[in-house]
Amino acid sequence: MYSDIEISRAAHKRPITEIAAKLGLDLNDLLPYGHDKAKLTHATVDRLKDKPKGKLILVTSINPTPAGEGKTTTSVGLGDALNRIGKKTVICLREPSLGPNFGMKGGAAGGGYSQVVPMEDINLHFTGDFHAISSAHNLLSAMIDNHIYWGNALRFDTRRVTWRRVVDMNDRALRNINVALGGPANGYPREAGFDISVASEVMAILCLANDLADLQSRLARIIVGYNLDKQPITAADLNADGAMTVLLKDALQPNLVQTIENNPVLIHGGPFANIAHGCNSVIATRTGLALADYVVTEAGFGADLGAEKFFNIKCRKAGLSPDAVVVVATIRALKMNGGVAKSDLGIGNAVALKAGSVNLVRHIQNVQKFGLPVVVAINHFVTDTDEEIAVLNEVCNGLGVKAILCKHWSEGGAGAEELAHAVAKLADTNTAQLQLLYADNIPLLEKIQTVAQEIYGAAQVSIEPEALKQLEQWEKAGFDHFPVCMAKTQYSFSADPTSLGAPTGHTIPVREVRLSAGAGFIIAICGSIMTMPGLPRVPSAEKINLNERGEVQGLS
Amino acid sequence: MYSDIEISRAAHKRPITEIAAKLGLDLNDLLPYGHDKAKLTHATVDRLKDKPKGKLILVTSINPTPAGEGKTTTSVGLGDALNRIGKKTVICLREPSLGPNFGMKGGAAGGGYSQVVPMEDINLHFTGDFHAISSAHNLLSAMIDNHIYWGNALRFDTRRVTWRRVVDMNDRALRNINVALGGPANGYPREAGFDISVASEVMAILCLANDLADLQSRLARIIVGYNLDKQPITAADLNADGAMTVLLKDALQPNLVQTIENNPVLIHGGPFANIAHGCNSVIATRTGLALADYVVTEAGFGADLGAEKFFNIKCRKAGLSPDAVVVVATIRALKMNGGVAKSDLGIGNAVALKAGSVNLVRHIQNVQKFGLPVVVAINHFVTDTDEEIAVLNEVCNGLGVKAILCKHWSEGGAGAEELAHAVAKLADTNTAQLQLLYADNIPLLEKIQTVAQEIYGAAQVSIEPEALKQLEQWEKAGFDHFPVCMAKTQYSFSADPTSLGAPTGHTIPVREVRLSAGAGFIIAICGSIMTMPGLPRVPSAEKINLNERGEVQGLS
Repeated sequence: MYSDIEISRAAHKRPITEIAAKLGLDLNDLLPYGHDKAKLTHATVDRLKDKPKGKLILVTSINPTPAGEGKTTTSVGLGDALNRIGKKTVICLREPSLGPNFGMKGGAAGGGYSQVVPMEDINLHFTGDFHAISSAHNLLSAMIDNHIYWGNALRFDTRRVTWRRVVDMNDRALRNINVALGGPANGYPREAGFDISVASEVMAILCLANDLADLQSRLARIIVGYNLDKQPITAADLNADGAMTVLLKDALQPNLVQTIENNPVLIHGGPFANIAHGCNSVIATRTGLALADYVVTEAGFGADLGAEKFFNIKCRKAGLSPDAVVVVATIRALKMNGGVAKSDLGIGNAVALKAGSVNLVRHIQNVQKFGLPVVVAINHFVTDTDEEIAVLNEVCNGLGVKAILCKHWSEGGAGAEELAHAVAKLADTNTAQLQLLYADNIPLLEKIQTVAQEIYGAAQVSIEPEALKQLEQWEKAGFDHFPVCMAKTQYSFSADPTSLGAPTGHTIPVREVRLSAGAGFIIAICGSIMTMPGLPRVPSAEKINLNERGEVQGLS
Repeated sequence: MYSDIEISRAAHKRPITEIAAKLGLDLNDLLPYGHDKAKLTHATVDRLKDKPKGKLILVTSINPTPAGEGKTTTSVGLGDALNRIGKKTVICLREPSLGPNFGMKGGAAGGGYSQVVPMEDINLHFTGDFHAISSAHNLLSAMIDNHIYWGNALRFDTRRVTWRRVVDMNDRALRNINVALGGPANGYPREAGFDISVASEVMAILCLANDLADLQSRLARIIVGYNLDKQPITAADLNADGAMTVLLKDALQPNLVQTIENNPVLIHGGPFANIAHGCNSVIATRTGLALADYVVTEAGFGADLGAEKFFNIKCRKAGLSPDAVVVVATIRALKMNGGVAKSDLGIGNAVALKAGSVNLVRHIQNVQKFGLPVVVAINHFVTDTDEEIAVLNEVCNGLGVKAILCKHWSEGGAGAEELAHAVAKLADTNTAQLQLLYADNIPLLEKIQTVAQEIYGAAQVSIEPEALKQLEQWEKAGFDHFPVCMAKTQYSFSADPTSLGAPTGHTIPVREVRLSAGAGFIIAICGSIMTMPGLPRVPSAEKINLNERGEVQGLS
């Protein structure tokens, strides 16, 4: 039994130029980063814009549990399997954040024999995209305090500066800080704070931008705070958007890497799945569709959050339309939804599985509401019993959906060939007909209510009076056409993380709303939301080091 | 008349593999970053360790003035000229900091026709080294507050945490901050602050490390604060050194780029020239010496600071020994030293030049004290008169030193051929015999006094009682063998930036001393020292943007 990092290290990587050649790209299309990573140039991305587009397959999952679902692993396994059965496929994933690697989580580049390599690089600095995002974000932050320092011509209300700073590190001490202390030379003291870089609106913008010009327009529209008349002040008012675009110029180019089976993967962008839409970049997805017949991509968290935002935000804004959806489930996780304790998940329990499968059923039905064909991938564990597998098949068949046992974690693409055949068939039948859940022109509150009722099974939405007033103001200010980006616990259809299964009749409390004017959505915060994680008592940083051969160990 | 960025953009860059081939390196020796930048792999650096070494040439200058000296420009011009006359030469420079580009200064990759390309990349994210340094630094910062949060087993005195945080941005609001505010979930409130990344001890360590193992040992020795018994706590006590090394693994590899005349340049490391030693990395210099017959390198600020620290810190620690020294001067700057106002520098004034040349004389004599042969490069301006040039020649000849008029700024390497011949001749005669200014085993205060008297021409050193006590404690604690890293204004031999020329009889006031236990030196702070710059009223960020062809403009 090898660890992910050991399997990754033993992979027979091919030079990235060979991977690119599989997609008809040559060295001029690439900006290499070492021999195993490359960016596709702006010119190449631009040239591919009008090419015919392949089929788009979204991988999503049931609500996450501590038992694990394996959404990224399944995306990689499916992509490898599609390539194995002769379907030219590109996998499009999100870039992992550097900071959390030093806390608790292992890497985020798949697992077992369904991984993307080089996993150490991908999980650490990679091609520097997140560093560029941090720089662009923090330049804007510095320009705000500098503007105030030099006379505050824009009349910032220093209590209402909403733009914070970012760092790609788990550092709870930076959540709430006072800045500009120490005397007149350092500025006007005020309250401020840091978020982790993936929570930056700049990240969401990078992932939604069509090209450099669109990137700059979106950056210009960022609202950084309010003046003494409570009017918004933007990045454009500070003349910051040009320099921010310069800092993001390279980062906007998608990154090409490979699976351990040497199939092409575009890894680009990684917005927080709660306060942002949690999908990889539009540019990468579009480029993948122009380069291959099939693109396999994933969205953050469970289908209630990730898939809903993939459709209602990313697809809406980018004009994308998926051809098939894979919902990943594990028998272990469904048993947890059926009330089994984590310590007992290794014991066969078809009754609990049946009870817990209501979670999967709700997710399948939700995806079907969007007019899309579904297949279920059962990410296999050795403890799964035949009886349990049969029960799960029966549940899915009742919805007209295939459930397919997949062993890509232990076998690589060969373990997901049946899934690949089923997915390709679904996508090729052209039955998908994406229907967004709400129109642009309905009131913002109604958009929130629609998601809560249609997707979460809630009876109603309760909203704080201040938040409601805020929505009405934004509607008047011309943001009425924005979609809503729901920020809710990923562990439940409700706002209560302990409420598993498929709860109904609950109330979704909207405590606060935020405006991402550059990204182009309204964030509805249902419950508490953490934009800067902390490190655990014994951070994994203490175990991460180089071994005597100069290889990274302890990362996973 | 073209701007630096226009000249840079019009350069006929060759693929970086071709530049590497000139040095006998092939693709396996490189980690490419795009087509015009590459890192030399650890394996290659290691393989070159025992190769015969070329001649080392240091470029330094008179005290900087607003008139400009052109030290980097001269280093590049000299390197191009040496290659032109058939001497295989590598230029070793420091990496510029990203943040200051958005403040006042233009790029830092030479000027005119003596530049290194791609200047936009080099001045911005380059190959991500500084981002890696910031990440490693801030991981340690987060681990400190996290340790305190989870029970503070090491008994940190939270008033005596000396390790700050860093960001590569000019952001005065972060100089003094309070962190961990907002309640128990965010930790224990305390005073903290940010420095600019180049001021990080991690940067100084990266530049002095011999290899990955040495890097980790140095990181482990960093003192981050003191416990309630005033005993030092190190990065090793927090088990942070392994993960920091992982984050710096790629950054420790030197970066290869080219001049606009397609000659090889290693740009690696960029420690602050005041609170650190201000030289490029030891690894890059050694690697350059193994790859070429001549290495041209530079040290920060004037020779009183940069060259002194190059000899007494870098050469001492790395066992390097220069074969010749070039002191760069401009007639304009010497006239400023002679009392001419900036607005009148365009007018010929041999009398003022003669008076101001005492500054140059002192620097030449200082370098000669180290046992090294000197040549003066007069970096030509069109306003220089024949009379002025003659005067300067006479002054230098009086010291047995050649002064050579150089036109590399306007003519490239061709304009510095005479300098190249003179430098090669000096280096080839093997007259250099480096003598360090003080021995390891004299008391720390005596080391400071020696530099102040021998180099600055001071009558004495005054030191605060607290600082003196501190030095004595460090001597007892085993740091007595460390060299001293002087932090003093770069504008004068004295501690008063307005005292130009060659002052004597002054007092050097040491207000504070700091210990860089990982880098391996004691910092003596003479006057105020700024480790986090601010942005000006109209930051250049407001003018930096992409033009319609997607090219960066406004950077210089």
